[in-house]
Amino acid sequence: MTDKIKKIDSLVADWQTLHRVFIRPEDESSRKTLVKYMEQILFGLHDFLNKHVGVTEEISLVKLAQEYTDTKINKNPQKKLADVIKAIIDEIAPRAVNVASPYFIGHMTSAIPFFMVHLKAITAALNQNVIKLETSKVLSVLEKQVLAKLHRMIFNFDDDFYLEHVQNTETSLGVFTTGGTTANLTALWIARNKSFSPKENFESIEKNGFFEAMKAHNLEKAVVLVSKRGHFSLRKAGGILGLGNQNIIPIDVDVNRSIDLEKLERKIKDLQKDKKTRIIAIIGIAGATETGIIDPLPALADICETHGIHFHVDAAWGGPVLLSETYCHLLKGIERADSVTIDCHKQFYMPMSSGMVYFKDPKALDQIVYHARYVNRPGSVDLGIKTLEGSREANSLILDSALKIMGSRGYALMIEHGIETARQFADKIKQRNLFDLVTPPQLNILTYRLVPEDIRKKLKTADTEERQKLDARLDDINIKLQRIQREAGKSFVSRTRLKCSFKDHHNSVVLRAVIMNPMTTVEILDEILDEQESIFHSLNH
Amino acid sequence: MTDKIKKIDSLVADWQTLHRVFIRPEDESSRKTLVKYMEQILFGLHDFLNKHVGVTEEISLVKLAQEYTDTKINKNPQKKLADVIKAIIDEIAPRAVNVASPYFIGHMTSAIPFFMVHLKAITAALNQNVIKLETSKVLSVLEKQVLAKLHRMIFNFDDDFYLEHVQNTETSLGVFTTGGTTANLTALWIARNKSFSPKENFESIEKNGFFEAMKAHNLEKAVVLVSKRGHFSLRKAGGILGLGNQNIIPIDVDVNRSIDLEKLERKIKDLQKDKKTRIIAIIGIAGATETGIIDPLPALADICETHGIHFHVDAAWGGPVLLSETYCHLLKGIERADSVTIDCHKQFYMPMSSGMVYFKDPKALDQIVYHARYVNRPGSVDLGIKTLEGSREANSLILDSALKIMGSRGYALMIEHGIETARQFADKIKQRNLFDLVTPPQLNILTYRLVPEDIRKKLKTADTEERQKLDARLDDINIKLQRIQREAGKSFVSRTRLKCSFKDHHNSVVLRAVIMNPMTTVEILDEILDEQESIFHSLNH
Repeated sequence: MTDKIKKIDSLVADWQTLHRVFIRPEDESSRKTLVKYMEQILFGLHDFLNKHVGVTEEISLVKLAQEYTDTKINKNPQKKLADVIKAIIDEIAPRAVNVASPYFIGHMTSAIPFFMVHLKAITAALNQNVIKLETSKVLSVLEKQVLAKLHRMIFNFDDDFYLEHVQNTETSLGVFTTGGTTANLTALWIARNKSFSPKENFESIEKNGFFEAMKAHNLEKAVVLVSKRGHFSLRKAGGILGLGNQNIIPIDVDVNRSIDLEKLERKIKDLQKDKKTRIIAIIGIAGATETGIIDPLPALADICETHGIHFHVDAAWGGPVLLSETYCHLLKGIERADSVTIDCHKQFYMPMSSGMVYFKDPKALDQIVYHARYVNRPGSVDLGIKTLEGSREANSLILDSALKIMGSRGYALMIEHGIETARQFADKIKQRNLFDLVTPPQLNILTYRLVPEDIRKKLKTADTEERQKLDARLDDINIKLQRIQREAGKSFVSRTRLKCSFKDHHNSVVLRAVIMNPMTTVEILDEILDEQESIFHSLNH
Repeated sequence: MTDKIKKIDSLVADWQTLHRVFIRPEDESSRKTLVKYMEQILFGLHDFLNKHVGVTEEISLVKLAQEYTDTKINKNPQKKLADVIKAIIDEIAPRAVNVASPYFIGHMTSAIPFFMVHLKAITAALNQNVIKLETSKVLSVLEKQVLAKLHRMIFNFDDDFYLEHVQNTETSLGVFTTGGTTANLTALWIARNKSFSPKENFESIEKNGFFEAMKAHNLEKAVVLVSKRGHFSLRKAGGILGLGNQNIIPIDVDVNRSIDLEKLERKIKDLQKDKKTRIIAIIGIAGATETGIIDPLPALADICETHGIHFHVDAAWGGPVLLSETYCHLLKGIERADSVTIDCHKQFYMPMSSGMVYFKDPKALDQIVYHARYVNRPGSVDLGIKTLEGSREANSLILDSALKIMGSRGYALMIEHGIETARQFADKIKQRNLFDLVTPPQLNILTYRLVPEDIRKKLKTADTEERQKLDARLDDINIKLQRIQREAGKSFVSRTRLKCSFKDHHNSVVLRAVIMNPMTTVEILDEILDEQESIFHSLNH
């Protein structure tokens, strides 16, 4: 190496510094600073997050933005690594959001077990690229094994099936993606492709395109049916795949807040009338983003079977519930799906960005095979042949390790804690006069809103016009409430709009709680309600 | 917390263990093991990789696969964290690929600076989700700043422009993606959408779909033109977006191995003849994956301007060359592109999986806006409104930190080392009788092949039939050579197929070297050639 340094040294002035930066810390004092911080992060993660992270100062977004307006890249290094990391901890972390706080119950982003950070660091250090065996070797083999484990969790085929496919280079039980969005996109991509069989002068929609496919099949439209609670990634997938996002057709929910089966059947009949529409998939939701509600999967499976339609289950949120012996029954019917989305960075508690999509048919992914001569040659084990994404980190290593460290029972404990704590939270809400529970938790998500007594009384006798005014006032109160609590920085619930009762015409603003942090207790939830009550009282004074 | 533990404890047997696993290492001896490994990874990365990673045992893929066939998830934990990490280091790492070795010059995956692992760990620890301000706050603001810095590197507009847009919540200069594939897909998605203006009964292709778009515009086909050296993600994007991958039309390369401009012009004229085809984009490659060649960007910009066609530059590989004052001229013309793809996990030396796509027009991303009521409301700063992906980690923090630690000059040093070392390597190849340089390095990629003297002689006088036989023999030799060297495990070059000379009809097997590791020296490259010669000689005996 010294020869090299000497040689290059004559070529460029500060090669030696660069070389040092590339392979090791600059000096002993830097190293000490680094060790101090990295130790806190690796071995005291939750203390570290509570101490350093979270909006501790009142700073408006506008003011914050003003501090980040320099748009020139410095020619020379501005800071040593230790100083950069110090600045992240001193300046960035306090202005980030402490999603790991047990009081942060607004979104599907939460605390992760401390060991996930170790595993992520190791994965980054190994820097394997699972697009190709030549840049991953054992990690490609491991990925196939983990995929088989999760496939088994969902579809539960017999030993022979898994023995045949676990390491089969010709078949794929699923793929890792970078999240639920690309997982859903992959599933619908495949559903779209297999909906258009070859005809004369038409090979496939993948090759010949959407227009040719419609003409060859004498069609005008291709659609997907999903409850109006479907995740917005589905509409996006409709736009990307050429269906048009208006053809991701939202079906109303019924009194259970899951897809209205009657209306679905009626819609199918309607669409089939003129024989000009192809239904490429029906989607069941297993844990709606807004309400946590699970669609009646067995009934949807029946309908799909009857009509020969691809059945996709978006279990991005709810998938890991399968690991709980107590609650897995909630997802009954998922084993009849053709494809299933599950996120890793949600209830598998992995770091961003990691998702998965599974296919019942081990040949389903053949619909989207792409080769390249310099990489991913036909017949190889290269995992990149059948993925939406190209180069990919080895997230399977993290999931595999986590399953070994926690066991399915470890994950089940967290899932059960979430569901049971959410139920207790629902009781607390019902016990308070100031709150209405809007959607009770089927899983670990619920919505509610604050309804002042005077408005509650008036609503009972209000005519349509009066009711509209009262609705508007309630919306206003709940928006303000959510904003003030968020800005105060101690607790966070999110908000959305839902019909408060089945017969409502108005989508009301509701507060939304997602109970996924194992450190969130009922006492904490009670405190959050207390804070909301006191914010409401301060609003009136 | 103790109350909580007691309460839950009655509910589930081993909540306490779980709780401990979630927030801290199990015991002192585990902690010691962990510290030992994490210290090596964080502070002696390259020594660690050289010591532990890489195929050190001769094991066939078939045999390896046999060890990864268990498909049941254990109910109870199998191992403590320390043991899991020990197993990764003892069992996984030796069977992974040491992509960080300076002898690993076959792919675009290489060594990364040690500090990237620190930054990745911190990003994972903060677990921010930049889909939404509520789960990222300052990281969303920082991301906009970093995007503006890179936009400036490419398009170099004036200060006023960047001041207006850097923190503008209504505009976007680019987006982070999970890699070059989704960056290219995003660029073509936008190019597709803006190609179809509203008409009566037609609002947009995003809403109404591909079929309606074609009918409304009275078209039969939508195509993209790119040199046949285009990355396979482009064909994939064509399939996904509904164009059909056959409509990503490959244009031949000329004697310079970049896109043949005459043939391109002829193709455009051809396609425009019947007025039934819409050319939605022309793509210039800035660093072809196989050869590193850069297309004549200024000429392509002229053509796109003349015809009013979206000009996309795929600079996934070459983009960071802009940071080198010595070589940035090679990318001249890129500033005239409508969109530009650059990968972070390639020549920005970041860990997998991170890419970016930039748009000259700060309103371009409006073509793909998606909202959701519970998140990403209209008018918010939420970055997830205009991205293909949903939840995303804060990769901007890593890029921003790396730019501060290295400066543009630091990156430039690595880029220049790659280009200059590749040139020296080309000379070495030319000096050896046994090798032919096939594509000289314009950047830091070259291809070559081994041609034995007897075949070289025969080729000079061979007729067509004879030549075919000789070509087949050469291909066979070079395939074997590459495989044997790869399996031996010391060095790695990749292989692909290219025409060896402009007039050839045959795509020959060539060896491909990508010089991106700053620790790869000419001496090492010489050793790799030596090894190849000796493998060849052993083939004959």
